[in-house]
Amino acid sequence: MSANVLSTAEITQCLTQIPGWDVKDGKLQRQFQFDDFVTAFGFMSSMAIVSESMGHHPEWFNVYNKVIVDLTSHDAGGITQKDFDWAKQANKIAA
Amino acid sequence: MSANVLSTAEITQCLTQIPGWDVKDGKLQRQFQFDDFVTAFGFMSSMAIVSESMGHHPEWFNVYNKVIVDLTSHDAGGITQKDFDWAKQANKIAA
Repeated sequence: MSANVLSTAEITQCLTQIPGWDVKDGKLQRQFQFDDFVTAFGFMSSMAIVSESMGHHPEWFNVYNKVIVDLTSHDAGGITQKDFDWAKQANKIAA
Repeated sequence: MSANVLSTAEITQCLTQIPGWDVKDGKLQRQFQFDDFVTAFGFMSSMAIVSESMGHHPEWFNVYNKVIVDLTSHDAGGITQKDFDWAKQANKIAA
């Protein structure tokens, strides 16, 4: 069962709870910047475990201390609550 | 000390030793495809350790079972032996 795609109003409301994230090209996006590669990849490792246990995986790009994440729910065809759940966890771990 | 940028002839020669890799937009690129997210991220974790110990880090993108890697030596301003060393390790680990 796929989650429901959120409306623009719902997305705008949810965005207030995840500082740093925005909608770009129809996906939830944030760029994280860490001190170095080790801490950047440590964040990715933590979120890899979260992703697998949620059954929800990001599109992400890393170069050295930067991680750019794009979230969308491919099965639902848009942004769902799952993407916001992932983003909240990411902010918590990156904090 | 930065490594020397390789000539086109040297790159063409070195490419024969790393199946799957090609030069794209001036960088050494390969797309890896794994069975699932766990094996894809397992590959990234192994190569993260290799990267840190080499002091040479990739630009890489992951979505689910796919990992796209771009290699260049920023300090040297082009492709160097270090990029080929990284690529060889990656092929070995992904094999």
